Amino acid sequence: MSGENAPFGHVAIIGLGLIGGSIGLAVRECMPDVTVSGWDSDADVRAVATRRGLAHVVPDTVAEAVADADLVILCVPVRAMEEVAATLAGKLKPDCIVSDVGSCKVSVAEAIARVLPGQPIVPAHPVAGTEHSGPEAGFASLFKNRWCIVTPCAATDPDDAEKVMAFWRGIGATVETMAPDHHDLVLAVTSHVPHLIAYTIVGTASDLEEVTRSEVIKYSAGGFRDFTRIAASDPTMWRDVFLSNKHAVLEILQRYSEDLTALQRAIRWGDGDALFEHFAKTREIRRSIIEEGQDDARPDFGRGDHTGAVLPDGTAGD
Amino acid sequence: MSGENAPFGHVAIIGLGLIGGSIGLAVRECMPDVTVSGWDSDADVRAVATRRGLAHVVPDTVAEAVADADLVILCVPVRAMEEVAATLAGKLKPDCIVSDVGSCKVSVAEAIARVLPGQPIVPAHPVAGTEHSGPEAGFASLFKNRWCIVTPCAATDPDDAEKVMAFWRGIGATVETMAPDHHDLVLAVTSHVPHLIAYTIVGTASDLEEVTRSEVIKYSAGGFRDFTRIAASDPTMWRDVFLSNKHAVLEILQRYSEDLTALQRAIRWGDGDALFEHFAKTREIRRSIIEEGQDDARPDFGRGDHTGAVLPDGTAGD
Repeated sequence: MSGENAPFGHVAIIGLGLIGGSIGLAVRECMPDVTVSGWDSDADVRAVATRRGLAHVVPDTVAEAVADADLVILCVPVRAMEEVAATLAGKLKPDCIVSDVGSCKVSVAEAIARVLPGQPIVPAHPVAGTEHSGPEAGFASLFKNRWCIVTPCAATDPDDAEKVMAFWRGIGATVETMAPDHHDLVLAVTSHVPHLIAYTIVGTASDLEEVTRSEVIKYSAGGFRDFTRIAASDPTMWRDVFLSNKHAVLEILQRYSEDLTALQRAIRWGDGDALFEHFAKTREIRRSIIEEGQDDARPDFGRGDHTGAVLPDGTAGD
Repeated sequence: MSGENAPFGHVAIIGLGLIGGSIGLAVRECMPDVTVSGWDSDADVRAVATRRGLAHVVPDTVAEAVADADLVILCVPVRAMEEVAATLAGKLKPDCIVSDVGSCKVSVAEAIARVLPGQPIVPAHPVAGTEHSGPEAGFASLFKNRWCIVTPCAATDPDDAEKVMAFWRGIGATVETMAPDHHDLVLAVTSHVPHLIAYTIVGTASDLEEVTRSEVIKYSAGGFRDFTRIAASDPTMWRDVFLSNKHAVLEILQRYSEDLTALQRAIRWGDGDALFEHFAKTREIRRSIIEEGQDDARPDFGRGDHTGAVLPDGTAGD
């Protein structure tokens, strides 16, 4: 895609970890006429970014990085968004669009609007990542064939939203739009609560006085093993996700707890039919997922074939 | 292993599905001097078993199959064990050992003892299987390098237990022993409750009025996808597991619910430290599992290399 088709002439990336770095590389590869500037609060990261060419230019100050930008993308942890956005006040062109990559949208959108009143804001969430992080981890194809969910707020100009959507398509993503609160609910159920559930059972198993950790580990091939893999995700990122997406997570959790209690009750009272019905229903959903191409019956779920592997939770590393 | 080293001269297998068939093939391969008879209530299954050579002889009646047996292994669904064992009354040699392969041990051991009072009983559970079933599915190497947990009851003669342990080693398994109730607790936490949890979240997601199934499926790459894979297991088998292992499952479930509520509370009250602490602790367990060789950082968890793949829950098909 040439610079003429690209929606922005100059893109600034704040935060040069896995996601930010990958965006920089992707833009340089897919939209070679677009100027990419990058900045990170960590001087060592800036040095690596310069060496790897994550951006055309990595200045020492954030002000230099954003001064001429048409689009600024905040690629920092969710709980750092507000503070980082605040440093941009007074440094942006009036029509510069501010976007982000956070895995919760309501809290992030509100935070950015709070510290940059009047600035065009288009929140987004590329659902992609790997288990690695930092400026060495990024690569240009991370977003190819991955979803990017763009979540315009009430104040978002539709044309600005379109530009951001075109941008993400330009680096290979498939774009969907939804309201920020709907996004947070969808991610709560497909990612956040499954992670919490996995974290919990691993902790419960670990706390059993009568079953040794060695036994749990020994016989873990199977259900439990899969949970431990999910539970190995970054503690800081996940703490931030649950604190930021509290409302949606609590809603899903409450429903889940009610459903689990119902099954627990069926077990206690030996209600085999209720159990069978529930299990048969959920088996169907698995089939739908394979049909929709979101999974694979092969042992590696097709992961071995993909570059840009998705984080176990499918979200971008925050 | 020759017939002289094998602990039994004649082994009878009742139930010629995946597990029973695999045992027959394994014994014929590893202990060629041992006579293997097999029986199944389904005449079509008996025909397939005869064609595939799952046993040396597959008579039309169970009485013929067990008359001279030194070891009878019940390879039928957990809830069918009592009825099937009852048909053996009066047909076994007095010192013939009765064993099984069920994934719950307390209920099965009690059921067998109830209908075959005085017969030597050595309950066992080979933790192996694939997603397939029936007489076409078995193969000789299913148990190679898999755990077999032998669970002697109070009445079990230690020498009889040793013979059954030697038998399982003879067909390639690594044998552990534990008390039946301890087995049921270990399996409840490593397999049964993880399955129930997975079944539940998939159902909860499916019931959401505001999030379409299509959305759930679309964004399922990640945590949710792994849960659906677990939740695709056979509904009949799992209904029986939960009905039979009720006590241990309820114990683990209750603890799990308490732990989940504690995390829910931490989220509601924004207790980031509590969340971080919990997540960091559980990350360690994942590392232990990889170190113990029970899992693999590779995308396919090493599954691609193994014959005799383990069922997602690691148990034998009931």
